[in-house]
Amino acid sequence: MILALAGGVGGAKLVCGLAGLLPAEELTVVVNTGDDFGHCGLHISPDIDTVMYTLADRNNPQTGWGLAGETWNAFGALERLGGPAWFQLGDQDLATHLQRTQLLAAGATLSEATQALCLAFGLSHFIAPMSDQTVRTIVHTSEGALEFQHYFVRRRCEPELRRVEFCGAESAGPSPAFLAALCAPVLDAVVICPSNPYLSIAPILGLSGVREKIKALAVPLVVVSPIIGGQAVKGPTAKIMRELGCEPSSLEVARFYSDIADGIVIDECDQTLAHDIEALGLAVHVVPTLMRSRNDQLQLAQSTLNFASTLRQGSSSSASQ
Amino acid sequence: MILALAGGVGGAKLVCGLAGLLPAEELTVVVNTGDDFGHCGLHISPDIDTVMYTLADRNNPQTGWGLAGETWNAFGALERLGGPAWFQLGDQDLATHLQRTQLLAAGATLSEATQALCLAFGLSHFIAPMSDQTVRTIVHTSEGALEFQHYFVRRRCEPELRRVEFCGAESAGPSPAFLAALCAPVLDAVVICPSNPYLSIAPILGLSGVREKIKALAVPLVVVSPIIGGQAVKGPTAKIMRELGCEPSSLEVARFYSDIADGIVIDECDQTLAHDIEALGLAVHVVPTLMRSRNDQLQLAQSTLNFASTLRQGSSSSASQ
Repeated sequence: MILALAGGVGGAKLVCGLAGLLPAEELTVVVNTGDDFGHCGLHISPDIDTVMYTLADRNNPQTGWGLAGETWNAFGALERLGGPAWFQLGDQDLATHLQRTQLLAAGATLSEATQALCLAFGLSHFIAPMSDQTVRTIVHTSEGALEFQHYFVRRRCEPELRRVEFCGAESAGPSPAFLAALCAPVLDAVVICPSNPYLSIAPILGLSGVREKIKALAVPLVVVSPIIGGQAVKGPTAKIMRELGCEPSSLEVARFYSDIADGIVIDECDQTLAHDIEALGLAVHVVPTLMRSRNDQLQLAQSTLNFASTLRQGSSSSASQ
Repeated sequence: MILALAGGVGGAKLVCGLAGLLPAEELTVVVNTGDDFGHCGLHISPDIDTVMYTLADRNNPQTGWGLAGETWNAFGALERLGGPAWFQLGDQDLATHLQRTQLLAAGATLSEATQALCLAFGLSHFIAPMSDQTVRTIVHTSEGALEFQHYFVRRRCEPELRRVEFCGAESAGPSPAFLAALCAPVLDAVVICPSNPYLSIAPILGLSGVREKIKALAVPLVVVSPIIGGQAVKGPTAKIMRELGCEPSSLEVARFYSDIADGIVIDECDQTLAHDIEALGLAVHVVPTLMRSRNDQLQLAQSTLNFASTLRQGSSSSASQ
């Protein structure tokens, strides 16, 4: 069984590849909920929705969020009423948030609400939120502290990032499915998908007890780097790395995960970094990592699993010595 | 200055007529909020919206609720996700609820949120909620206690009504605009619009101190009967009256209001009831009360104001004796 940790668009693509290779019972997908927020009374879980819509092949590849073929009648009317226009929600997308909000109001946990939505979207693979408790990512910037969506959407990541805080993380435990995967005797590997390490994966690792449980695992943890040739495929990862004082590169990604990762998958164009990454104690696997097509997703997922299985043999043999 | 108390469709029509005759500063419209409810995280104020949409000439005359020319993309998608389909909200209508909800979440009172929405809809006459505190109409029926919208929309008023309860009314005070009108030296009359007495007007009268303040007024209170020829123009008023053990008629409407009303406007077809109503101590004004057109609204509003002014002279002369 594979445990995949994911954030937004890049993570969703690799999750799609993994779900194409593995039956539902052999894949646990855990998604960042630090970006969740309340907007006009609705509970919005942007990363869960990105992964869910991508798995359902309903995502909008142009925007990287929301559903394909959307209409904008409700938020168009809201804007005409003088309502908040900085965070746009399409009409069909709104239905997801309305349903999630009413399930939560009726007493469902976020895990239960997410499972119901996955079923409604016809998914065979379930997605679990990282936690059923509230964690809120606060970005401390040159303009002061900003709630994540205000930083990410309203301010388009323009303010210089200084520090990221995950409010509530230390008292929030992993969701039941996440905890079950971390403790599963059948767990074969943990895959950290190519998501933003600082904003998408760090909140997952920051949950109460999670980093310790991951460190204690006997199975390999493999990271797929979100940086290709010093650039992020999408999103502000490279900009953030520069603002945090480190060069955007897979070497710095490896350094970020060096206390928990056994190996990292990097792109062919970053092959020259392999030696320095290995010096950090991580195995390196070099393949094309840009996912332009469904086939790219499947191939990267397959080579990541293959890479993990070689590490597993290594780590289990070292564990048995 | 006129204070009008209103509920849904019938009340909204007379409010429209009054607003066509009176400048904004001479009309205070107070609307029932006992029907308000939370749905999928949104704060919905059905009666306020009916009055607001009618005043803005944006109402849907076919349904009696919502906006004309609606689209249904969000709630169509919600239904496909297995969400609650019994309470439908159009896409543009949704924008009203999203905006109200976010204004309330940002700390606005319901009065302030309503005023902002009235402005956004281009109204010159403001509508005030009856209260800024929560009052919830619970309908005790043959099927047990039902929240108002569950009784009214989901169960289409089918269960037999036994008793109506206004939870929170005794501790909820009138909204600032309502209180100001009740205390205004320039108040000339109170008009109870042709709304359901038991479900739309009773919650307003049931607010803390309101019935006492209305009884103490020196100005006349005039009711426009919602019953014409033993029938309600719209809605369950006649059915409810039978279930409460009284004949649906303007006589029973007069009896319901007899402790506070000085006069009642009844339809021509109910002229034979005038003598019995006068025996209750109410003056009677007989005119056509069915409002099919904008002109009907203006005419009924004008004859109601004229009727009230005759009572005012009477009551002020009797008060001075």
